Amino acid sequence: MKEFMGEDFLLSTETAKKLYHGFAENMPIVDYHCHISPAEIAENRVFENITQAWLGGDHYKWRLMRSNGVDERFITGDASDREKFQAFAELMPKAIGNPMYHWCHLELKRYFGCEKTLSGETAEEIWNFCNEKLKNLPVREIIRRSHVDVIVTTDDPVDSLSYHKQLKEDPSFATKVLPAFRPDKAVNIEKDGFPEYMAALEKAAGLSIDSMENLYKALSSRMDHFAAMGCRASDHGINEVAFAPASEEELDAILRKRLQGGSLSQDEERKYSSAVLLFLGREYARRGWVMEIHYGTSRNTNSRMFQKLGPDTGFDCIRSGDCASGLLSFLDTLEGEGKLPKTILFSLNPNDNAMLGSVIGCFQGTEAAGKIQHGAAWWFNDSKTGMTEQLTNLANLSLLGNFVGMLTDSRSFLSYTRHEYFRRILCELLGSWVENGEYPADWKALQELTENICYKNAIHYFGY
Amino acid sequence: MKEFMGEDFLLSTETAKKLYHGFAENMPIVDYHCHISPAEIAENRVFENITQAWLGGDHYKWRLMRSNGVDERFITGDASDREKFQAFAELMPKAIGNPMYHWCHLELKRYFGCEKTLSGETAEEIWNFCNEKLKNLPVREIIRRSHVDVIVTTDDPVDSLSYHKQLKEDPSFATKVLPAFRPDKAVNIEKDGFPEYMAALEKAAGLSIDSMENLYKALSSRMDHFAAMGCRASDHGINEVAFAPASEEELDAILRKRLQGGSLSQDEERKYSSAVLLFLGREYARRGWVMEIHYGTSRNTNSRMFQKLGPDTGFDCIRSGDCASGLLSFLDTLEGEGKLPKTILFSLNPNDNAMLGSVIGCFQGTEAAGKIQHGAAWWFNDSKTGMTEQLTNLANLSLLGNFVGMLTDSRSFLSYTRHEYFRRILCELLGSWVENGEYPADWKALQELTENICYKNAIHYFGY
Amino acid sequence: MKEFMGEDFLLSTETAKKLYHGFAENMPIVDYHCHISPAEIAENRVFENITQAWLGGDHYKWRLMRSNGVDERFITGDASDREKFQAFAELMPKAIGNPMYHWCHLELKRYFGCEKTLSGETAEEIWNFCNEKLKNLPVREIIRRSHVDVIVTTDDPVDSLSYHKQLKEDPSFATKVLPAFRPDKAVNIEKDGFPEYMAALEKAAGLSIDSMENLYKALSSRMDHFAAMGCRASDHGINEVAFAPASEEELDAILRKRLQGGSLSQDEERKYSSAVLLFLGREYARRGWVMEIHYGTSRNTNSRMFQKLGPDTGFDCIRSGDCASGLLSFLDTLEGEGKLPKTILFSLNPNDNAMLGSVIGCFQGTEAAGKIQHGAAWWFNDSKTGMTEQLTNLANLSLLGNFVGMLTDSRSFLSYTRHEYFRRILCELLGSWVENGEYPADWKALQELTENICYKNAIHYFGY
Repeated sequence: MKEFMGEDFLLSTETAKKLYHGFAENMPIVDYHCHISPAEIAENRVFENITQAWLGGDHYKWRLMRSNGVDERFITGDASDREKFQAFAELMPKAIGNPMYHWCHLELKRYFGCEKTLSGETAEEIWNFCNEKLKNLPVREIIRRSHVDVIVTTDDPVDSLSYHKQLKEDPSFATKVLPAFRPDKAVNIEKDGFPEYMAALEKAAGLSIDSMENLYKALSSRMDHFAAMGCRASDHGINEVAFAPASEEELDAILRKRLQGGSLSQDEERKYSSAVLLFLGREYARRGWVMEIHYGTSRNTNSRMFQKLGPDTGFDCIRSGDCASGLLSFLDTLEGEGKLPKTILFSLNPNDNAMLGSVIGCFQGTEAAGKIQHGAAWWFNDSKTGMTEQLTNLANLSLLGNFVGMLTDSRSFLSYTRHEYFRRILCELLGSWVENGEYPADWKALQELTENICYKNAIHYFGY
Repeated sequence: MKEFMGEDFLLSTETAKKLYHGFAENMPIVDYHCHISPAEIAENRVFENITQAWLGGDHYKWRLMRSNGVDERFITGDASDREKFQAFAELMPKAIGNPMYHWCHLELKRYFGCEKTLSGETAEEIWNFCNEKLKNLPVREIIRRSHVDVIVTTDDPVDSLSYHKQLKEDPSFATKVLPAFRPDKAVNIEKDGFPEYMAALEKAAGLSIDSMENLYKALSSRMDHFAAMGCRASDHGINEVAFAPASEEELDAILRKRLQGGSLSQDEERKYSSAVLLFLGREYARRGWVMEIHYGTSRNTNSRMFQKLGPDTGFDCIRSGDCASGLLSFLDTLEGEGKLPKTILFSLNPNDNAMLGSVIGCFQGTEAAGKIQHGAAWWFNDSKTGMTEQLTNLANLSLLGNFVGMLTDSRSFLSYTRHEYFRRILCELLGSWVENGEYPADWKALQELTENICYKNAIHYFGY
Repeated sequence: MKEFMGEDFLLSTETAKKLYHGFAENMPIVDYHCHISPAEIAENRVFENITQAWLGGDHYKWRLMRSNGVDERFITGDASDREKFQAFAELMPKAIGNPMYHWCHLELKRYFGCEKTLSGETAEEIWNFCNEKLKNLPVREIIRRSHVDVIVTTDDPVDSLSYHKQLKEDPSFATKVLPAFRPDKAVNIEKDGFPEYMAALEKAAGLSIDSMENLYKALSSRMDHFAAMGCRASDHGINEVAFAPASEEELDAILRKRLQGGSLSQDEERKYSSAVLLFLGREYARRGWVMEIHYGTSRNTNSRMFQKLGPDTGFDCIRSGDCASGLLSFLDTLEGEGKLPKTILFSLNPNDNAMLGSVIGCFQGTEAAGKIQHGAAWWFNDSKTGMTEQLTNLANLSLLGNFVGMLTDSRSFLSYTRHEYFRRILCELLGSWVENGEYPADWKALQELTENICYKNAIHYFGY
């Protein structure tokens, strides 16, 4: 029996251990997509207690608490931080096989030096132990210890990026903190608040948005602003990728109708969003940016809780159903114009793995090795099995050696251990192939593969 | 090489063996969903021969026989029981990797003490051996030997439940035999025989069904009757979960049209079935019953054989296609009203595993730890790989420790060994995580997990 | 650590080794579906260099090159053969985990006796080494060394089959080279060139096609011609299986409209293709032919490259979306008429595995053990994991022992090693079950299973 989460956690062969400890472990981190707050880095936030650091906005943990029958008071309600921590700790023994079990214990070990196993019984001791340590763990210290070279946050086009600017100008902090352009609010014309958002965009861009042309100008002007702050990537959260071509006149009419408070048909919504995505894709291509598309979600499925808590509170799920034809038409249109940017496709539904692995092979180009990428196992798939399946699928259908690898997608500063988790899983997989005679024990090639997937490919692909 | 289906069958590590032999093996069985006949328990049926016990109504076996090119005469036709047994025995060597291979040999070992391997050559010997043993194996004896605490049968609302009553009042038989409420015939308005079924329901409930309100009253009155016999669960067999809201007037009109022999549009059918399912969901919530939804089937796909043999004869298959949005709307509607009952979701299509694992996390509540459950691998998925995938998926996305575990879903009294099969697979999986350093060797926690998933969670969840 | 692709490649247990080296390795090959050129066999083509043999028409390799950012000049363009080989060799180290890595090295070993590992550094040496060997490797020699008993090519109904005739009459070449009937061009009424194709069919059949009846006569007459050349199988490439019944009058009108240059609705296309497929199915049944259906593709997804290079150049992908209901109706209709032929179903989307495994069990018959088959892992799924999953799924849901096994589906004469790859994977899987106590170590049964799946089942099923 192996030690619980010991030095060789998830590494079962000599080759895997050598790959991990020899190469992967020491590579710095490019966290090319996450949801942490640049303000908190700028202000170098210190957490008062482990509940704030762990349970503050982490809806992964909230979902597990709800799955354990915990009352909302102890999740998002007015219970004390200590009570909330207790409620979370008590479910841990039931979380066998859940990546959260590993993430939590990796974080306890790496950031706090705590080797205890978390449960209702140990909660008090761990609470005290970690809170003491947190005093000397401001977020910049967490980032430094994690060897993070680049952090890419997720930012709205109207954002001033003032914290990014402040961090850029701060010589005391070596990690690059760069924005990514996430224009979901400009794409989702059907959402409440779209007119108000357009007003904010008008203000940020300094021009009036009364036509698609002006909308495009406004977005482009914000991209210039993002570019000045080092932006090299966009990010899109899309339920399902649709594709519906329309004329400029038609699109102008749709936009004006919505801005005047009219309601749109689903067809009109799709025409509008297709047009905006196409415009954005062309712009990304022109600027050499990477387009990241995260799709396959059903969001805010529990209306009562959405009313109460708003979005991103743990009530989203994996969408089933097919949107491949929309995706194909979208990629094909840009490719046909010679304006398909570097693109990373993430589906929340793991059933899309095989389809995506084959789709990316149809739209490659000479701009980069692996120009079109199948993104790392995402969100609900970010588990040992989910990551192993994505890696295996990618290896089967494309060139694993060109993969840009892992990102945290996290709202927490303690999540960099997810890179460790990924790297162990990657090295275990590579090692298993070598040990099984499926790839030669060519250490130069293996070192290159490992270092590239863990770090170098991403640096090169994004141009950081 | 391990012994063929020996003591440590499917258990490859010391931890797995300890979990199985130390904890799982000795837990009693709650078979919370099956299709066996309460009459045969009440009458304590004795089978004349192994063909009657094995091949009587078991369409899993019939399908394998057809897959071997066996003529229908030897399956459902007038061949002798001995000939039928021979035809089945002859396919066994080709069934490598099929759960049927393991089920059959587990049954031969556990109930008959027969250690032979079944094939055309051994058929005669096993036929004689088992038939001799069957003389002393009435169904109650089979149940007793299997340590079954609770059996939950599947019953139509119009059923008198007289056998359940008889069994309840029989002090000589300790196993609880409880009904589950399966109102499919009241939901499937499009099926032939719906008007006749409504007439039967009118008679059973003692009122005239000329409106939705009266239909609901009739169903509710039958639920009272079921509750009096200890019912704590419903069961629904649904091809795909649809959701189409409608007004009471519209629904009344649909019901009357159908009762008068009119034919309905698919939209009307969906409105009706949505309304009845919502009503039932609310009632289950009020009564604290569990709602089991089995969906994802294409039934009676071979029309010629359906004409000849009727339903449930081996011509159903896994449905592909997406019905998640209907499912989400259904759950959301009940949740919004505060009337979502404890629910177990089973899809026949294993592609839905990830989606379901994420859906359940959106609708949990404080009524139970694991209020909304992703049901055990069902029917065509009831194999080593299918169960391992369902367990792994559940562990990845929720709290495996709250899982209510296995059921036989069987029409045969010899199927309790499927619980053994499940428990071995469960212990092997838990054991592999512990041996691999993914969970601590905390034997108190492991014992609790194992006993809970094998038995205690179900007792607590259903309230048996 | 195991030797890289050594004698026991992919075989990890003693049982697996014994099954492979004892039984599987020595069985001849029936390659019951491929895309090689009968002309090149008849003419006994000699390849000038390894680029011609490997990269000539192999779009699997082209896709990997594009995924590595290689310019089209080095793929389908005017770069020299040596340059193209270099570009391919350079991506190999990144192809860890890709079946191409194994196929290439198996081919280097088996046909060239080359034990080198292919990379940019070794390309020159391997280029020279293999080109020298190719001088003595005409295609018939490759086939002979591969122990191929039967090759089934894929041929258009209008094909004269003159090369098949020539080969049949050539006593110097023992391998049977038989045609398979692939009438896609007669089914795909929506494709450009359909009227021209009908003209070619008229000419080949010697009758005028102005009605469905005459179309059927023409196809039937070509089937007679194929039968005379030993044809026992058809093959259909279908994006998604649709089913739309129509009257003969309606169908005649659709056909005439299209022949006169009119454009059809999707509904009309489906009615036509359903009718032709039903006709063909009935004919296959009457003739005892096998109907192979390959579906689940999205073809020519990159319009710009399709314009430039045409079809089958590496721009196809896996289709998602559901067409099970069309498939079920199609099978049910033929079954109801007693005219369902032996059928092999292949989906490009591995998500269909479970559905297909259950569908085949609904339409079996006494004409053959395993009359309806779930075909081997196809195209993008033709990897170690893809094949293992198909085999496991088939074993779970049907009788693996009746499986007709592997085919190359290849355009290259060097692909017979894919049978070796399959056989190793099969033996590893069978061996794992035996070693794990899931099947008895009954060597007679295991030999039969292995030899049947590798060779004998296909011979018997097709009647070669």
